[in-house]
Amino acid sequence: MYTYSTKIKLHETDAAGLLFFSHQLKLMHDAYESLLEKIGFGFADLIRKKPYFLPIVHAEADYDAPLFVGDVITIGVTVERIGKTSFTFAYTITDQKKRRVGAGKTVHVTMNKKTRNKISLPAELRTAIEKIKK
Amino acid sequence: MYTYSTKIKLHETDAAGLLFFSHQLKLMHDAYESLLEKIGFGFADLIRKKPYFLPIVHAEADYDAPLFVGDVITIGVTVERIGKTSFTFAYTITDQKKRRVGAGKTVHVTMNKKTRNKISLPAELRTAIEKIKK
Amino acid sequence: MYTYSTKIKLHETDAAGLLFFSHQLKLMHDAYESLLEKIGFGFADLIRKKPYFLPIVHAEADYDAPLFVGDVITIGVTVERIGKTSFTFAYTITDQKKRRVGAGKTVHVTMNKKTRNKISLPAELRTAIEKIKK
Amino acid sequence: MYTYSTKIKLHETDAAGLLFFSHQLKLMHDAYESLLEKIGFGFADLIRKKPYFLPIVHAEADYDAPLFVGDVITIGVTVERIGKTSFTFAYTITDQKKRRVGAGKTVHVTMNKKTRNKISLPAELRTAIEKIKK
Repeated sequence: MYTYSTKIKLHETDAAGLLFFSHQLKLMHDAYESLLEKIGFGFADLIRKKPYFLPIVHAEADYDAPLFVGDVITIGVTVERIGKTSFTFAYTITDQKKRRVGAGKTVHVTMNKKTRNKISLPAELRTAIEKIKK
Repeated sequence: MYTYSTKIKLHETDAAGLLFFSHQLKLMHDAYESLLEKIGFGFADLIRKKPYFLPIVHAEADYDAPLFVGDVITIGVTVERIGKTSFTFAYTITDQKKRRVGAGKTVHVTMNKKTRNKISLPAELRTAIEKIKK
Repeated sequence: MYTYSTKIKLHETDAAGLLFFSHQLKLMHDAYESLLEKIGFGFADLIRKKPYFLPIVHAEADYDAPLFVGDVITIGVTVERIGKTSFTFAYTITDQKKRRVGAGKTVHVTMNKKTRNKISLPAELRTAIEKIKK
Repeated sequence: MYTYSTKIKLHETDAAGLLFFSHQLKLMHDAYESLLEKIGFGFADLIRKKPYFLPIVHAEADYDAPLFVGDVITIGVTVERIGKTSFTFAYTITDQKKRRVGAGKTVHVTMNKKTRNKISLPAELRTAIEKIKK
């Protein structure tokens, strides 16, 4: 499983003292970004060179335990589903004590940049994502 | 239905040209914050005066249409469910053309600040939230 | 003087209980964005239609008093300087009690989008900014 | 010199395609946070255990070159000045090609948490910061 680690920053907490909830989804995306780059689909290339986008159409997150500034978390990323025009990534988050502190998923569709119509997963991308799934 | 309006800011978009997905959840929370303040439970008071927290244990969002910098959105907030120790708010987002562009929900539990144990919804809060539901 | 008002959101505070410092600069930019739109140079148009960018080359901020979630601030925006290839906006921030709580400035250059070279302020933009200055 | 490296994330860019300016200051703060933790003054401890705050009273940033998603930057942190009730950290940012892409500084005061009055730099903190300066 692909894993991505990061430390909770002060600006990711709020005045209630804990990680602000939407930042967990942002951090899940950071893990996804890092994985995409590893398989040759980094956002720098996606934005400048590819004729398609991978917009998120659904996202969700569970929060199991509070996270404080300075906590080190590890986000495990797996491919949950590969469809005809979409794919789903799932995330499990553990803290420095290996406790599960959160989870989530993001559902992406493949879209032609010019027409903004949904398209079938480009073969190169399907192949790369299938490799992670195994 | 309570509604909250805002304009998409440059810093809420990303290099793909659209609203970054986690900012939709942040904006839903802004609407929730605004509604809580209206019913007498503004975060300034919640943080400084109340013996309980309302942490989010689950959140989700759907993305129906892209949002650009300068788009004006209206977020309608409703109470979906009031439980014994939790409540759920639902959000529907429309743009300046009244098209639905997104939706979402947040599930909150009531927690004692000191013990960090779940507690029954305080009566004052239950009453205030029930009033919105009607 | 152009003024822009906003309320400090929970996600703009941090675990120390106050507005996180870089968010003051973000809010100054929101005021600048709002002013630009008012004079016909909204970012939606700047990004899609104009052959030039207005990148920030210098920014600074002073913090005079702490800001809490729920505080309402008003940001006054003035044009401090119009140069050949750059301009400077200045910001003064007051709270609901009319106390000055912060200030700042942003220095922008005009840059050709394709060549990424600095260019003289386009006449249309110079005229619009000069009008604010008066 | 203390250095901190990070990669520009999609959510740190905006629809103009580059790093949004206030995020450079946020990343400078991440470097500062990391350094403070290294010298025994991590924010988790500062917030929970120390009787003083270190609020920022002034911040500034220069932007020398555009930064894109995926760019790897290194932030060098130095102590520029240690005063009676304040200290200043300076930051220099270089990209993966060792080019300087930005710089900045943050000025901090030491403040009693309860009274919110400025206080002299606590001896333990002064000693720790002086060690970095050498």
